[in-house]
Amino acid sequence: MNAPLPHRQRFGLGLLFGLMLPLLAHASEPLPSWNDGPAKRSVIEFVQAVTDRSGKDFVKPAERIAVFDNDGTLWSEQPVYFELLFAFDEVKRTAAQHPEWKTTQPFKAVLENDHKALAASGMDGLLKIFAATHTGMTTAAFDDNARTWLSQARHPKTGKPYTEMIFQPMLEMLDYLRSQDFKTYIVSGGETGFMRAFAEQVYGVPPEQVIGTTFVTAFEYKDGQASILRTPKLAHNDDGPGKPVSIEAVIGRRPILAFGNSDGDLQMLQWTAAAPGKRLMGLVHHTDAKREWAYDRQSDIGRLDKALDEAKSRGWTVVDMAADWRRIYPFDPPVPEQTQ
Amino acid sequence: MNAPLPHRQRFGLGLLFGLMLPLLAHASEPLPSWNDGPAKRSVIEFVQAVTDRSGKDFVKPAERIAVFDNDGTLWSEQPVYFELLFAFDEVKRTAAQHPEWKTTQPFKAVLENDHKALAASGMDGLLKIFAATHTGMTTAAFDDNARTWLSQARHPKTGKPYTEMIFQPMLEMLDYLRSQDFKTYIVSGGETGFMRAFAEQVYGVPPEQVIGTTFVTAFEYKDGQASILRTPKLAHNDDGPGKPVSIEAVIGRRPILAFGNSDGDLQMLQWTAAAPGKRLMGLVHHTDAKREWAYDRQSDIGRLDKALDEAKSRGWTVVDMAADWRRIYPFDPPVPEQTQ
Repeated sequence: MNAPLPHRQRFGLGLLFGLMLPLLAHASEPLPSWNDGPAKRSVIEFVQAVTDRSGKDFVKPAERIAVFDNDGTLWSEQPVYFELLFAFDEVKRTAAQHPEWKTTQPFKAVLENDHKALAASGMDGLLKIFAATHTGMTTAAFDDNARTWLSQARHPKTGKPYTEMIFQPMLEMLDYLRSQDFKTYIVSGGETGFMRAFAEQVYGVPPEQVIGTTFVTAFEYKDGQASILRTPKLAHNDDGPGKPVSIEAVIGRRPILAFGNSDGDLQMLQWTAAAPGKRLMGLVHHTDAKREWAYDRQSDIGRLDKALDEAKSRGWTVVDMAADWRRIYPFDPPVPEQTQ
Repeated sequence: MNAPLPHRQRFGLGLLFGLMLPLLAHASEPLPSWNDGPAKRSVIEFVQAVTDRSGKDFVKPAERIAVFDNDGTLWSEQPVYFELLFAFDEVKRTAAQHPEWKTTQPFKAVLENDHKALAASGMDGLLKIFAATHTGMTTAAFDDNARTWLSQARHPKTGKPYTEMIFQPMLEMLDYLRSQDFKTYIVSGGETGFMRAFAEQVYGVPPEQVIGTTFVTAFEYKDGQASILRTPKLAHNDDGPGKPVSIEAVIGRRPILAFGNSDGDLQMLQWTAAAPGKRLMGLVHHTDAKREWAYDRQSDIGRLDKALDEAKSRGWTVVDMAADWRRIYPFDPPVPEQTQ
């Protein structure tokens, strides 16, 4: 009378496990917000190849260096780079301490929201705005300013904090790589201190793995009090050829994976690609006007032209945002999976 | 007849374990090459305090940043900095490609071993020698040169490879800190690329944790071949106030432990000391003319004067090499323990 029960139990458990198996596999599958297309497959195949101890492409954990651009690669960059919006807001916030700005360009243009005059001030004007808002204070004071702005400012289109306008599929890629003993770095034209104010909390990238544009700083010490002052002199422009230069200077190893989204990332991808061994070079192509923005060859912000040609001719991974990503931002609802 | 045997066996094993216990305790004790004095105790007490989860001084693993000077702190620096000997040897090795050096100072002085003329060429002369031997080639070619020299050159006094003239007690300290989830950095006036050529193998410090003096570099790309060229322009002098500057620029966190040996390390120690929370600042004082060298306030190399005064007035750890270290180099025989 009791004999069938254990049998049924075993049968029942076996059936249960049989049903759960595909679910478990799905839950642990990397990159859940990516559609099953060539981009996702290229990432997974690459990671499997370099982490397979018995394979010819195996790379030691210490050498698994992955570098990512930030603006347009890990978070959005429209209508302009978010750090520029921070700089504009900082000009407005501190204007009372600079009465001369009311009559001096490019500050006058910022205070009056005069886009035409601002555009006319060009790169020289932008550098003045950057210097006025990013230097002349200690590194600690700047960090406070950046954190305060990031916690309060909202994006003009989405109404979301900028730190939520990050790409869910790229967060998953960072997590996936780290779970496979990769060291993930940001290498970006953004200013290092600005990015460090959110990179650890938002991307899980600690300050020592954030590489960006920098200003010359000076150590100050008086009566046991120490600080580091940011001066207006540019130390390093981390764009274009500045990216492989800073990777070599700060990391001292060749990356095996590099991801960007614009021509400013081309040299970083070339530097990564030109080393022997298996490598992954990738570009995020902004093709989704509905969920994010669509722009490439003609855009002033994040222009993707030469790098797109080189990616196509060399077989680098090009992420078609509209087709490859099931969701863009963490706050987006997931859409049904489409198999390409 | 058989009864006593198991008893004797148990007794025997118990006795054996009893005898082994102190040996085991000794083997697993950190810093075995340090005498049990105030310096060793300050290191162990500091590490125990910041790693004790329930204590008031607990520091999260991610924030356990320890910085070490190299010359005179992790390896010897007499009769002159070893990297300078590398530069002199490189001048001789490449002299055939520079016939003008036979008649041009400071190169003529190097080729003729003319110490007087070399000294007369001063800092300006040294910078010319550094530029000629450290720049004008790719980062990969320089790395090859440095590794070749390190594998072949021998120290004039000990006859040992320079990479063996490292301080066994400091190796133990690096290991001990890493075993307690510290991230150990080198922050040194030495050139970054030169130190990276041996730091990982010799100290277990990976390239991305080596910070030093740097030259401006340039990315070069042609037909799918990429390289980074070292140019003669100095980018950063990682000495004195340059040390806290580079720590902030590259690491972006305040160290909780800093170790140096000269006035060039003073600002790094001040920067570390001035942050809130428990900190350890230490100096290696070269007091052992017999086993290493003895020098401090009057030395041209590794002058220790102001930093020694500040260490004494602020209660920083000062390692008395002769009294605190049971052995200097890994190739030294250990000496009997002395309790201070």
